[in-house]
Amino acid sequence: MNIPVTLSYMDLEGKQHLAPGVSAAQKGYLDIIDQTLLPGEQKRLRLETPEAVYEAIKQLRVRGAPAIGCSAAVGLAVCAQRFESTSVQEHLKKLRECAAFLDSSRPTAVNLSWALKRCLAAVKGTTIAEINQQLLDEALTITAEDIQLCEAIGNAGKTLLKPGMGVLTHCNAGALATAGIGTALAPIYTAARSGIKVKVFSDETRPLLQGARLTAWELAVSGVDVTTICDSMAAQVMGEGRVQIVIVGADRVAANGDTANKIGTRQLAIAANYYKVPFYVALPFSTIDRSILSGDDIPIEQRSADEIFHCDGAKVYNPAFDVTPRELITGFITERGILTEV
Amino acid sequence: MNIPVTLSYMDLEGKQHLAPGVSAAQKGYLDIIDQTLLPGEQKRLRLETPEAVYEAIKQLRVRGAPAIGCSAAVGLAVCAQRFESTSVQEHLKKLRECAAFLDSSRPTAVNLSWALKRCLAAVKGTTIAEINQQLLDEALTITAEDIQLCEAIGNAGKTLLKPGMGVLTHCNAGALATAGIGTALAPIYTAARSGIKVKVFSDETRPLLQGARLTAWELAVSGVDVTTICDSMAAQVMGEGRVQIVIVGADRVAANGDTANKIGTRQLAIAANYYKVPFYVALPFSTIDRSILSGDDIPIEQRSADEIFHCDGAKVYNPAFDVTPRELITGFITERGILTEV
Repeated sequence: MNIPVTLSYMDLEGKQHLAPGVSAAQKGYLDIIDQTLLPGEQKRLRLETPEAVYEAIKQLRVRGAPAIGCSAAVGLAVCAQRFESTSVQEHLKKLRECAAFLDSSRPTAVNLSWALKRCLAAVKGTTIAEINQQLLDEALTITAEDIQLCEAIGNAGKTLLKPGMGVLTHCNAGALATAGIGTALAPIYTAARSGIKVKVFSDETRPLLQGARLTAWELAVSGVDVTTICDSMAAQVMGEGRVQIVIVGADRVAANGDTANKIGTRQLAIAANYYKVPFYVALPFSTIDRSILSGDDIPIEQRSADEIFHCDGAKVYNPAFDVTPRELITGFITERGILTEV
Repeated sequence: MNIPVTLSYMDLEGKQHLAPGVSAAQKGYLDIIDQTLLPGEQKRLRLETPEAVYEAIKQLRVRGAPAIGCSAAVGLAVCAQRFESTSVQEHLKKLRECAAFLDSSRPTAVNLSWALKRCLAAVKGTTIAEINQQLLDEALTITAEDIQLCEAIGNAGKTLLKPGMGVLTHCNAGALATAGIGTALAPIYTAARSGIKVKVFSDETRPLLQGARLTAWELAVSGVDVTTICDSMAAQVMGEGRVQIVIVGADRVAANGDTANKIGTRQLAIAANYYKVPFYVALPFSTIDRSILSGDDIPIEQRSADEIFHCDGAKVYNPAFDVTPRELITGFITERGILTEV
């Protein structure tokens, strides 16, 4: 299977690195595939400034909670390599400012602040060179862990799949949303490696069409059977008996299991509940935010009206996410197995 | 209020007629607003051949079950004016062929075949001129009745509305879907005339955006408060308590009350049921097809994959309609009042 690489640390020779063991003495870049251009164009970007990393996350050039976390971590490390600090103290100040700036790029995914906090906590060096190496090691450790988490989620989730089964997914919680093979799509990839082929229905996912542009693209290039449907058709395909399981990703899960994910997930969960189709959320444990007790307290990003076609005189309401109540979720597919409680 | 005129019989002087009393001796045209160009361009088309009327219905230049019925009726009358028949027998044969051809333009809305059958049944003349006049009279009677039906539906439905209420609708069952002020939107217009202003949430309605292009446009130009949302956001706005009633139209209702309407209606009804928001279908009685016992037997039009953005290698499933089961419908807003049984 030809699963795309979403992000990496790229050295000056243009070699991609996805795991620690690279010297930070020579500067590198955050390398991402620009997802706003997919599927028409496969263009990779090299990012090296706080502004460029912030812009790429804000404008969804890289998106998906785990991929945002990894990109911010690698981004922080490459930015630090370019700080012209004259003292460790100044370097640490710039580092904290840069992390706070990157953390403000998007509000909903918990992985962003989680990864940045973890990188800052890893800094224990007494020289600028040591600090930069620790940052890069931590960023690439987070990335390598994400790849492993995706594999573990895939192995846990593939036990739910049988040959010929119809699997419905929303938005993109695939390879393009992570450093590895995805969260919601990971079970589909790991099953395919074992010869278990399913039929995927991919919601197009308005307004930005991450399903039609990204999920359908990565599944099609990987040789997985995929059918694009409009978001409004999900209940119809369920009612027709074409779907035996729904698997989606998550941007943030509250302590009680309420799950924030791409707008439309809640409606899908309600339809699955009505048709008694099992509804699973696939996620690494880092997506669970125990500081938030229930979904009511998860901040929901409101995005620009320009994302939705509208007439003169018509208003637009454009929440980027919604919260699916715990009662509508059959289980959570995680690196620790399939859980009914988080 | 400046509610648009969707269709009319236009005489050679360019005068619009919406009721009988026009001589068919002088040829006329079927006049429609081209809805595929809205809201960007307001272009009216003059149609006079079976091929042009068929194409306009097939390509959704005129759409909405009642408007399709009226357009087919007026279209049949103007086509008959141009048949170069040498005998009444030949004229009647061409008339039946033309009606069968127009009837094949779209399969789901029952109004199409209902209106054409009614026009054919009205033909009792013994000369070509008499036949043509009877056809035009019947077509304009159907149109005038549709206008009255919309008013009656509006008057029945407005009793459900209170000032400031949030009303959610799907697709376009407004003025643009009828010869009058619409079905689902009629209560909103009649309420507005009485000073009762509601807040409308209009689903954009993928894939062809009839909600974002047509419903939002006609409400905005009529001065009604309207907010466009993506189809996938309906459950979210219901969950937030912004919506107190859902009103949609219908393309065909089976004898048991199962209702075929634009794809996404079923999913909306399931969400409304979950949030206990009343869900009403607004329709003239002619939309009820008593020859069909349940929704399972309503033919569902599958439209082209090209209507939905898709990657190379991805399939597309594109049903234009779905069937909402009777159990999810609170009531039917009709010209005979609000009914819980049809």
